[in-house]
Amino acid sequence: DWIKQQWTEAGIDSIVVHPYDVLLSYPKQNDSNYVSIKLANGTEIEQSQRKELVIDAEQNDPNVVDPFNAYSPPGEPEAELVYVNFATIEDFIALNRTYKINTVGKICISRYGRIFRGDKAVHAELYGCIGLILYSDPLDYTSIPKIGFFPPTGAQRGTLWVDNGDPRTPNYPSIRDAWHQSNSSLTLPKIPVTPIGNIDAIKYLSKMGGPEVPTDWRGGMNITYRFGPGFALEHVNRYVMKLSPTAVTVMCFKSYLPDRYVLLGNHRDAWVFGAIDPSSGTATLMELVRGFGAMLKRGWRPRRTLVFCSWGAEEYGLIGSTEWVEELQKELQARAVAYLNVDIAVQGNYSLAANGVASLSQAVFDAAKTVSNPNPTEVSSGRLTLYDTWKLRYPASVGDKPSYYGLGSGSDFTAFLQIIGIPSSIGLASYPVYHSVYETFELVNKFVDPGFKIHLAMAQVWGELARKLADVPILPVDCRVYATDLAQKRDALYQQYGSKMESNGIDFSQLNDTILIFTTSADNIHKRIASIDSTNAYETRMINDQLMQLERAFIDQNPLPGRVAYRHVISAPSQHNTYGSTAFPAVVDAMFDIDVDPDQTGRWDEVRRQYSILVFHILSAAA
Amino acid sequence: DWIKQQWTEAGIDSIVVHPYDVLLSYPKQNDSNYVSIKLANGTEIEQSQRKELVIDAEQNDPNVVDPFNAYSPPGEPEAELVYVNFATIEDFIALNRTYKINTVGKICISRYGRIFRGDKAVHAELYGCIGLILYSDPLDYTSIPKIGFFPPTGAQRGTLWVDNGDPRTPNYPSIRDAWHQSNSSLTLPKIPVTPIGNIDAIKYLSKMGGPEVPTDWRGGMNITYRFGPGFALEHVNRYVMKLSPTAVTVMCFKSYLPDRYVLLGNHRDAWVFGAIDPSSGTATLMELVRGFGAMLKRGWRPRRTLVFCSWGAEEYGLIGSTEWVEELQKELQARAVAYLNVDIAVQGNYSLAANGVASLSQAVFDAAKTVSNPNPTEVSSGRLTLYDTWKLRYPASVGDKPSYYGLGSGSDFTAFLQIIGIPSSIGLASYPVYHSVYETFELVNKFVDPGFKIHLAMAQVWGELARKLADVPILPVDCRVYATDLAQKRDALYQQYGSKMESNGIDFSQLNDTILIFTTSADNIHKRIASIDSTNAYETRMINDQLMQLERAFIDQNPLPGRVAYRHVISAPSQHNTYGSTAFPAVVDAMFDIDVDPDQTGRWDEVRRQYSILVFHILSAAA
Repeated sequence: DWIKQQWTEAGIDSIVVHPYDVLLSYPKQNDSNYVSIKLANGTEIEQSQRKELVIDAEQNDPNVVDPFNAYSPPGEPEAELVYVNFATIEDFIALNRTYKINTVGKICISRYGRIFRGDKAVHAELYGCIGLILYSDPLDYTSIPKIGFFPPTGAQRGTLWVDNGDPRTPNYPSIRDAWHQSNSSLTLPKIPVTPIGNIDAIKYLSKMGGPEVPTDWRGGMNITYRFGPGFALEHVNRYVMKLSPTAVTVMCFKSYLPDRYVLLGNHRDAWVFGAIDPSSGTATLMELVRGFGAMLKRGWRPRRTLVFCSWGAEEYGLIGSTEWVEELQKELQARAVAYLNVDIAVQGNYSLAANGVASLSQAVFDAAKTVSNPNPTEVSSGRLTLYDTWKLRYPASVGDKPSYYGLGSGSDFTAFLQIIGIPSSIGLASYPVYHSVYETFELVNKFVDPGFKIHLAMAQVWGELARKLADVPILPVDCRVYATDLAQKRDALYQQYGSKMESNGIDFSQLNDTILIFTTSADNIHKRIASIDSTNAYETRMINDQLMQLERAFIDQNPLPGRVAYRHVISAPSQHNTYGSTAFPAVVDAMFDIDVDPDQTGRWDEVRRQYSILVFHILSAAA
Repeated sequence: DWIKQQWTEAGIDSIVVHPYDVLLSYPKQNDSNYVSIKLANGTEIEQSQRKELVIDAEQNDPNVVDPFNAYSPPGEPEAELVYVNFATIEDFIALNRTYKINTVGKICISRYGRIFRGDKAVHAELYGCIGLILYSDPLDYTSIPKIGFFPPTGAQRGTLWVDNGDPRTPNYPSIRDAWHQSNSSLTLPKIPVTPIGNIDAIKYLSKMGGPEVPTDWRGGMNITYRFGPGFALEHVNRYVMKLSPTAVTVMCFKSYLPDRYVLLGNHRDAWVFGAIDPSSGTATLMELVRGFGAMLKRGWRPRRTLVFCSWGAEEYGLIGSTEWVEELQKELQARAVAYLNVDIAVQGNYSLAANGVASLSQAVFDAAKTVSNPNPTEVSSGRLTLYDTWKLRYPASVGDKPSYYGLGSGSDFTAFLQIIGIPSSIGLASYPVYHSVYETFELVNKFVDPGFKIHLAMAQVWGELARKLADVPILPVDCRVYATDLAQKRDALYQQYGSKMESNGIDFSQLNDTILIFTTSADNIHKRIASIDSTNAYETRMINDQLMQLERAFIDQNPLPGRVAYRHVISAPSQHNTYGSTAFPAVVDAMFDIDVDPDQTGRWDEVRRQYSILVFHILSAAA
């Protein structure tokens, strides 16, 4: 309501609220989860804290939800404890094959980090564990001194849902009267999962038996890290699932071309106070709307329609944005030019960092070049713009540019890119206090961005990128960069798997030829753009449609194998880490750990099938 | 090559041939299939003819392929014979439940007609038969005296493939190096199937035992039709599968709007001489190209691009058109305005009959009104145009219009409509000599259309419809007719299943409300069209895009249940008859024979799910 009012005051009257009833999960607030060591006589000792310690008055709020992992089932498993490092698929493979640690029937404890926590639960379940405990190791979660230092009592909340959107309605929106799966047939985790602080983790890990872990499995606590198995642990997990309304607020500026949309979005929900995630982004979005509103009042109108989106229930699994994209998929498929997501806008003052589809990289760089550096030290070092610092701090491995990676998942761009193929940009990152009670306004105000100057700079980058996409006659989409990116991805695939694939009858010249065809196509369209008559409405519209549709060409009509809502054949999360971006995901997933599969014929047939589908889509995009 | 040359001479230089290697099937030409009665001592008697009798010299050609059903497996089953009427799903249900005839382990014999022959094979397999014999009963195949009379020695060839396109590459094109399924994992029929003439059928059916069939199961031969089981039959089935190149020839007229396509298509392959199927259509298409070529030479240029397509391997399962649509799906999705299919153009002189998506009906009627009646008797009766005769001979059940039905499958419009949602029009029909050796040029020249005046009239209707779609500033797509059509389909569903659905908790007011929303939307867009400034390039393009995308909105991102390539939620073939068009196919299929399903909960959940998906898509189309 507040956002709606602010946006109305900014001078915009076209505001729509899309309500959805979606399945969420909560701890029992007066009887929440804990972990304890259980003696042979049944006595519980060393019970973990149920609430995070209040260090500063502003954290003291009865509405703070106790640490929990959304969509964990309830349960009270008792079993011996095993340490599984980051619970990646590689960690479990090593535990099994190299270290011969049996995880079946055990409760496992994993550090947070490296991969999406939902995948940790999937792996634990796959390897027979009956419970999973997550903690934030000080090695991984105190990297920035003072700013966002993570107290040992802090526990990271977060969802375990590895698909996106309301778990009851895969592929379809949770609109009024929509059919939904019964709770018993949902594909949610089957083992209880709980986050704890390292103040508790150290009590358990310091008492573990079993052999010592290798160096790269060691965390930062002053103990000897051991695999286990340890003592008997009881894991008391009390959750409730319930339907809650979540809302998506959408605002449009009407424009010259009402059927072409440039969308900007940010989510509104937070696990606790959420001063960084998402409020740094939300503050930035509010400022942008205010600024664009002021321009409207001065008579400016964009060529294309600007659409601002405020999402609900992102933290549970991108639920608001996914339901909305599912509902409007035909309209967005026909009309959306780009989606620009900002989740965490500011987490420190080191550098701008942005990710996205390759075709928008140059547009993002160009926007960053227009924004003055908010850091006086950087300015005095001659780096006058955000771009200059970015290029210095995060240089790309090739060429004189900043790094700019592809998109995995983990924020609201996912449905736009993976269901429809809408080019998306600007990613997110993590930082110690993430999803804990310690992520407060004062933390941001005192340490992260005093004076909110970096927030303002972010609003300027985001706003300039949006303005340009909405305003210039020919869309700033660069197909040549996409061609280069495909070639780099091909090289990386070849380096990792090339000889193995070739010795199994896969002809890399097919992929090479196809990328050459794409490259020629990309060059040709930019030659046409260079000589276009931009006053000819048909010619500009025609070429803009082609630019808009480039990304659509990479969406397969079938979901990627084993997925529900991922269809992008060039860039999607790996099957084993929902956060990361994997190049040629279906091919790479088919290759994963292929050597130990007893069905070599079937597996290689699947690799060849996915390779063929990839080649087809690149040809289709070139056409 | 000949078509390409003709089209080049017509004055068009943009001709592309798209080759595909696809899996086809053939009889062993020197050792082809037959059926025989087998005595207890192993002697074969009453062997069926392997070739159709030559009645007229022009049928005498060594290249005539012996009667066969494509994609039947080879095999030599021996079993008792059972008569299964048309082998519809209802026929098998009646055999089982009402007449208590056991079909398991039997060879069944079915009349041709009512449903697609491929579905007959699916049903026979489902009910445990180990072989299927198809024959054309004189009751069903001599309806038009003299013209196309079907000799008792004639056997209808035809495919058994119930999905579309190359069976090796579902969903993807059979382009060079494409991955394909191994032959052992194809979803082709598992029981041998052969067509025979009724000269042979009468020998078997007249000797059958068992009870007499009910009246509506009787054919037109002078025998007593009995269920069987009869004597032991041997069914010798010899087939080979092989990869054959098939080609799709595509020609474009470049135009004012090169990225909007109006497509016209017809297939080129025939089972034997194919004077009606497809050559009546092919002749018409050739004449159209010649005509449009002449207009081009006089300086005419269409506003949108006209694309003429000549398909290969339609008879095997719409293979050429399906592979091409699969290959170009992204391009066609973005650009195709409509696809106009003519398979059989002329089969008699009774009346024009056309089918298609509801939104094009008015455009088809308008085109028919511009074409003079080629039949002097009709003209002297005051029916001056094709439209007048059509309205008289096939009046619609409601309103003062000709009948115009939705599309099922059975010709090359299928992939356009079902994979992408491209509005399609003009159907096809059947006639006695269909797919037999007796379908020759002389038959057409002497009986069907002496002087080829009706062929010319067909070219005029088809050409005028294409010209209008390609030329007028605002597309002649009528959304209001679609709204009326949805309401009629809703009424039909309600009449058939309404009370049963309501008593299982399905709320028809949801569908009613949704159709009202669609109707309001439809009225609104036509009000906007009435007041549009058609000189404004952006406004016209915007409204044309909405009109073009109407049909796309009904394509689900997932195939219909149990299907591979059908995604249209309003109109698709029933699961039990690939030829027929079923309204709301997924809902109707979920309701089929629901009462006897032991899993009532699961089945009704599926009905509710499909009902919800239908409602969602109508809302999406309205938006």
